[in-house]
Amino acid sequence: MTKTSAGNCFEDFRLGQTIRHATPRTMTAGDVALYQGLFGSRFAVQSSAAFATAVGYRAAPLDDLLVFHVVFGKTVPDISLNAVANLGYAGCQFLAPVYVGDTLSATSEVIGLKENSSRRTGVVYVRTRGINQDGAAVLEYVRWVMVRKRDETAPAPGDHLPRLPTAVEPRLIGTACPPLDVAAYDFALAGSPHRFDDYAAGERIDHVDGMTVEEAEHQIATRLYQNTARIHFDQFSAAKSRFGRRLIYGGHVISLARALSFNGLANAFHIAAINGGRHVAPLFAGGTVFAWSEVLDKSELPGRSDVGALRLRTVATCDRPCADFPFKAGDDYDPAVLLDLDYWALIPR
Amino acid sequence: MTKTSAGNCFEDFRLGQTIRHATPRTMTAGDVALYQGLFGSRFAVQSSAAFATAVGYRAAPLDDLLVFHVVFGKTVPDISLNAVANLGYAGCQFLAPVYVGDTLSATSEVIGLKENSSRRTGVVYVRTRGINQDGAAVLEYVRWVMVRKRDETAPAPGDHLPRLPTAVEPRLIGTACPPLDVAAYDFALAGSPHRFDDYAAGERIDHVDGMTVEEAEHQIATRLYQNTARIHFDQFSAAKSRFGRRLIYGGHVISLARALSFNGLANAFHIAAINGGRHVAPLFAGGTVFAWSEVLDKSELPGRSDVGALRLRTVATCDRPCADFPFKAGDDYDPAVLLDLDYWALIPR
Amino acid sequence: MTKTSAGNCFEDFRLGQTIRHATPRTMTAGDVALYQGLFGSRFAVQSSAAFATAVGYRAAPLDDLLVFHVVFGKTVPDISLNAVANLGYAGCQFLAPVYVGDTLSATSEVIGLKENSSRRTGVVYVRTRGINQDGAAVLEYVRWVMVRKRDETAPAPGDHLPRLPTAVEPRLIGTACPPLDVAAYDFALAGSPHRFDDYAAGERIDHVDGMTVEEAEHQIATRLYQNTARIHFDQFSAAKSRFGRRLIYGGHVISLARALSFNGLANAFHIAAINGGRHVAPLFAGGTVFAWSEVLDKSELPGRSDVGALRLRTVATCDRPCADFPFKAGDDYDPAVLLDLDYWALIPR
Repeated sequence: MTKTSAGNCFEDFRLGQTIRHATPRTMTAGDVALYQGLFGSRFAVQSSAAFATAVGYRAAPLDDLLVFHVVFGKTVPDISLNAVANLGYAGCQFLAPVYVGDTLSATSEVIGLKENSSRRTGVVYVRTRGINQDGAAVLEYVRWVMVRKRDETAPAPGDHLPRLPTAVEPRLIGTACPPLDVAAYDFALAGSPHRFDDYAAGERIDHVDGMTVEEAEHQIATRLYQNTARIHFDQFSAAKSRFGRRLIYGGHVISLARALSFNGLANAFHIAAINGGRHVAPLFAGGTVFAWSEVLDKSELPGRSDVGALRLRTVATCDRPCADFPFKAGDDYDPAVLLDLDYWALIPR
Repeated sequence: MTKTSAGNCFEDFRLGQTIRHATPRTMTAGDVALYQGLFGSRFAVQSSAAFATAVGYRAAPLDDLLVFHVVFGKTVPDISLNAVANLGYAGCQFLAPVYVGDTLSATSEVIGLKENSSRRTGVVYVRTRGINQDGAAVLEYVRWVMVRKRDETAPAPGDHLPRLPTAVEPRLIGTACPPLDVAAYDFALAGSPHRFDDYAAGERIDHVDGMTVEEAEHQIATRLYQNTARIHFDQFSAAKSRFGRRLIYGGHVISLARALSFNGLANAFHIAAINGGRHVAPLFAGGTVFAWSEVLDKSELPGRSDVGALRLRTVATCDRPCADFPFKAGDDYDPAVLLDLDYWALIPR
Repeated sequence: MTKTSAGNCFEDFRLGQTIRHATPRTMTAGDVALYQGLFGSRFAVQSSAAFATAVGYRAAPLDDLLVFHVVFGKTVPDISLNAVANLGYAGCQFLAPVYVGDTLSATSEVIGLKENSSRRTGVVYVRTRGINQDGAAVLEYVRWVMVRKRDETAPAPGDHLPRLPTAVEPRLIGTACPPLDVAAYDFALAGSPHRFDDYAAGERIDHVDGMTVEEAEHQIATRLYQNTARIHFDQFSAAKSRFGRRLIYGGHVISLARALSFNGLANAFHIAAINGGRHVAPLFAGGTVFAWSEVLDKSELPGRSDVGALRLRTVATCDRPCADFPFKAGDDYDPAVLLDLDYWALIPR
């Protein structure tokens, strides 16, 4: 069946290979509304064109995670259709704002390969770049996935492990945020008086609210991103998997946690970089997601007095309110934890 | 947890206090499409830019109830997060049309306060105003809610009960409808030949059709409005409530009833004012909503020969067709009744 | 109940009668995003404005089936509200591209009538035309439905059976596709290297992926089209029907099958004509749709060297992967088959 794509297996990847992904996608006000309807985000810059233009954007920018999901979705048919596991992210930088009308496409470079000792799978490292219609990079990140081999006996390419940053350096972040006129930033309208100086490293914030996910919701979201991983949509096949049901796209949990984090981080309006993330446990429809955050670090940005960066760990849980900040016991995560996300968010000074 | 908002309790409100609500929201074609997909409305003026501009609008206006829900949603974090009950609405006027591209924000003034004898709750009356990016009021209404006290022993502000109109006077309505070129209003395309003169006070209309609501639908709708009342989204917490499940936002029932009312009121295209409304019973996912209307009154509008106003009572029921107009037995509502809404709708003469 | 429309019964139709349908509908970016979110289509021309304009469109055109569904939806209140069965389609041609901002309306001409021997029902044939705001036809098709009589004893109009084409002739198709600059058509970005010459009559393609449908999804879709057939939305009434539950609009299955067909037909980006279609079995929520296609024929288009036409049969099934191309045993369809659709799709040469 040569016309149907079955995705790449481990032995199909080559170090240094560049893959141009289908399908380019023009982002619209419809995408923004659906994202709003699915996650309920309330950050003022993304919600209001009037607010965004007052502070210095040329229009309301798209939610950073919507951009991420669309770029990520493009890579699935080529990179992770035969993935056994999504292992991690690193060095994710949002490089330029994305507006309604921009067309996103994506390319990935294979930067690492390592066959597993079983010879049945291998780990593929790619650096993915999301670009707009002018060819400008809007997003870049490294992702690694464990991918099946088609043929266990196939020779594997030589191992190569890329060097990955544990965190994005503050000097590299913020290019997707134009210079901000903080005097025009209306904190009452934005929902909170708290600025950069009001947060301290070590501070923990319970985001209080919970959000239950329905099958229709995560399916709509993930189709919107043209993500083709069947486990999210195909109950007939999922019924035979080890979970017996559809698995919610991990990015859905990230978006829910981010939207919930408004309650406590209302002015941390822009995700500038994602240092790393771990999908600790799968989420299924019917689960209610809660979240809390810890300020891991904070940093000024070179040459900028308008915004500073908070390094945040946002933890999402299932069916478990977070007033007591559930996280780890020793090396083991609390069984309710779904997500452990480490990122830089910008906030007015 | 000072950075997380837990909403206001009764003792936090002060008479005369004005609250500017977060988050401003730019309305888009995406919101319109989602509203369409969730309610299935068919009024020609809102559905077709060609129709709307032919009769005198500068573009297709947003559905009045979409505007209401977005403005209402903004008030929830400040006014009703700790509400025990939504008690009523009065004096709701749609003051100016809202178009795609407009940014809505909201302020509320506390116009009444009354502690309950239990000292555990009190009633808060607010006049909420929805404004556009130019500061022009597009919507105004009074709402009163019963709100918990944080501390039963806290002193309460002195009682003050506002004077509220039982109905909006016809001379005050219609400003959100531009002068209409009725000769250009194509009744066949609008779906009905019936005009102002074809309706009589006392007439009752069964809207025939029924619409079942799914959890995903009402969650998407209510998140679209940035309404943060957790009972609509959080099944984990709702399971412990007296209903044991998520409660559908009352405005969802209003929108469904309004969309169903097209069948019989196709040309009553604009809600100019809401005199009052009562959410008689809660609706849960899986219920099928039916509706019927009675023409309570009709009125010409001062200085206008293009449109007249029908005062309508629209009654919505759950799992109960309305061919026999279920309403009240004595003072008690029929157990199937969900909603009793009293409003003025404009219709060409 | 004179103000409420109960739809037409068989004896209400007259041969030659023309019906202008309500409600005109302006298509927006919101409709496009919802269609994307509901079906997950990935054809590059419809997905990307940059791609579409590079090859010769003035913008990204709407998905052909979205146009079909909206036009079809308008006809339901007048033609098929009292339908017992949708019997068939013929001669469906997409005549002009539809873009965001276009307003669609529809008219139908009654071109055939035949009472059934039971005298309880009759078959109505209509030619429906979808037109844009300039009055230009964008779509035309013949559809026939079996409709109830209100009164079995009512005299029926004389029988008249229209002559219908078994397939649309290639010389009539392609007007909705502007001259294409195939040199600018980026096959890598479109997701497949396969062109017109790469497909052969008789070739069969398994589209591999499956898509489960939820109640909320098909309800949102069908309301978006303003389709008022209650069986799709009203569980209270559906519970008493022979199926006991809501029936998914047949067009939903067509759209799912078409979106799935991207995997194997990525460059067959435009449905130019539908020769005929049969909804072999009903689909209910919870079912997972799979699809496969056969190339029935292929044809050059007169005077065009940019694109050719593939005549495709796309078969959709429920809970049945299609690796072995399930179709018919003798005259009987495989019990898993939902849809048997015969259409012309354009593909670059």
